[in-house]
Amino acid sequence: MNEPIHVIGHKNPDTDSICSAIGYAFLRNALGDAEVRPARAGSLNSETRHVLERFSLPEPDLLTSATGQQLILVDHNEVAQALDDIRHGTVLEVWEHHRIGDLQIPSPITFHCEPVGATATLIAEQFFLHEIEPPPAIAGAMLAAILSDTLVLASPTTSNKDRRMAPRLAALAGVDVAEFGAELMAARGDIATRSARDLIEADFKAFNFSGNRVGIAQVEVPDARPLLARHAELVQVMEQVRAAQELRLVILLGTDITRKGSHLWAVGERRDIVEQAFHCHLTGQGVFLAGCMSRKKQVVPVLETAFAAAM
Amino acid sequence: MNEPIHVIGHKNPDTDSICSAIGYAFLRNALGDAEVRPARAGSLNSETRHVLERFSLPEPDLLTSATGQQLILVDHNEVAQALDDIRHGTVLEVWEHHRIGDLQIPSPITFHCEPVGATATLIAEQFFLHEIEPPPAIAGAMLAAILSDTLVLASPTTSNKDRRMAPRLAALAGVDVAEFGAELMAARGDIATRSARDLIEADFKAFNFSGNRVGIAQVEVPDARPLLARHAELVQVMEQVRAAQELRLVILLGTDITRKGSHLWAVGERRDIVEQAFHCHLTGQGVFLAGCMSRKKQVVPVLETAFAAAM
Repeated sequence: MNEPIHVIGHKNPDTDSICSAIGYAFLRNALGDAEVRPARAGSLNSETRHVLERFSLPEPDLLTSATGQQLILVDHNEVAQALDDIRHGTVLEVWEHHRIGDLQIPSPITFHCEPVGATATLIAEQFFLHEIEPPPAIAGAMLAAILSDTLVLASPTTSNKDRRMAPRLAALAGVDVAEFGAELMAARGDIATRSARDLIEADFKAFNFSGNRVGIAQVEVPDARPLLARHAELVQVMEQVRAAQELRLVILLGTDITRKGSHLWAVGERRDIVEQAFHCHLTGQGVFLAGCMSRKKQVVPVLETAFAAAM
Repeated sequence: MNEPIHVIGHKNPDTDSICSAIGYAFLRNALGDAEVRPARAGSLNSETRHVLERFSLPEPDLLTSATGQQLILVDHNEVAQALDDIRHGTVLEVWEHHRIGDLQIPSPITFHCEPVGATATLIAEQFFLHEIEPPPAIAGAMLAAILSDTLVLASPTTSNKDRRMAPRLAALAGVDVAEFGAELMAARGDIATRSARDLIEADFKAFNFSGNRVGIAQVEVPDARPLLARHAELVQVMEQVRAAQELRLVILLGTDITRKGSHLWAVGERRDIVEQAFHCHLTGQGVFLAGCMSRKKQVVPVLETAFAAAM
């Protein structure tokens, strides 16, 4: 086969999706069994752009269609988050750290999911298991992915494996974990200067809960209070995104790293299910969920169960 | 939590389902993080009974319900092959080597699937990665699972990882791979003396192909010709199983290890899809598919695609 294999993360890619693709493509090429290229399913956010510039890594190829492609999926395994025509591509492998989704694959393939903070932790582990040392730039990109997804190893999704991989990668990249983490968080940009659309779309994922398409945006920042002042503008953009993507419900989580909790806003139908799921009362101002930091572990499973019960 | 975690394979358990459960429960207990027990979802076949007796291993606990149980699934990830009420249990992990099925899991868990010949190969690898040496009986049971699922490393599903694990386990168990393999194949019993019902039910799995429930039995023997003489009796039992389990179609694969191919019989509706899928004409005598040895790799994906196209 002459066509290269592409490693690709989810739509609206974040640093973990991009850097896990870069890392795994490098590893597979180093193992020499096929021509493997990193790809992306959308444009890069400001944090990811900063990471690629810092380590002089090229932007991965943009892939807009899966048809006829051979793909390795990283950081996602749900149809709603994959390229629209994913069922017309051939999925060769999956490396993942989210819930097990709805992508059925007719043949046995390598499908590895593990409840760690970042997919890049699993990719880094594969480098070490194969005894291949990632070059500084690749190590730095994988470290950035881990620190981005775990809020510098502070999020409740952080596992011991993330904590073991981060310093090993930092040593190879020649950076300090805490300093580099602060640099990354700063590269996300100031809430005050970002557009409401960017805040909603930068980390937006669609889910299928018992037949209901639900979008959940997340903004993770040291101080989420500036979001409150802009709630009218944010809710307006959420309504626009909901209409454009034909979603039943759109949720925004404004995660406050310092206060260890998230402000939640919801627009659309079945907001009652959200209220029941989180035992809260939704107002225009949103509601603060103390201790709720992880969309993956603390929001998606709760909504999945609540929608299943309500249908 | 006081309730133990159970490691369990598919219904109609084979040697890989039983011995992978025994091996993984032993490993998790050795790692000391929880009380973990092997379990089984049905009665043992003659080959598996021989393995447990040979290594003086107790029969795993019979589990008939998943409700309220904490489960680690080995060797299956399809609802049709799991305990009937699997959706009322909590699935903590999955270790697997089949296609990715229809079991959605709301939280991120360890879900490891790899296209190797036997689940026991993946369990054995975990022992070595954790630097825990399996005792001779556990090593012997895992070796039996590998040799059983790969027809003594001869089936087209056999991977390099199976070929690496088998001799390591044989050394620990104190057996010779070829001799022990022949002993296992002999323990399957002579086709001539087994009942037609045993031949159909010993390795019978149900699948959901685009909403159609299809059962596929497989008999793997050095010489499958004695099956031909008994086809009327076999077809009768296939019809009975189809009615009892309310299946749309039931297929029997009589895999001839020496001649490297399988005789295929089908009863029920949509036999035309089977004919299209395998480019064959089905008669009462069945049809011989040269080179077709693996239900998982060569039959299930082909039928999945053919049913999807026909619906």
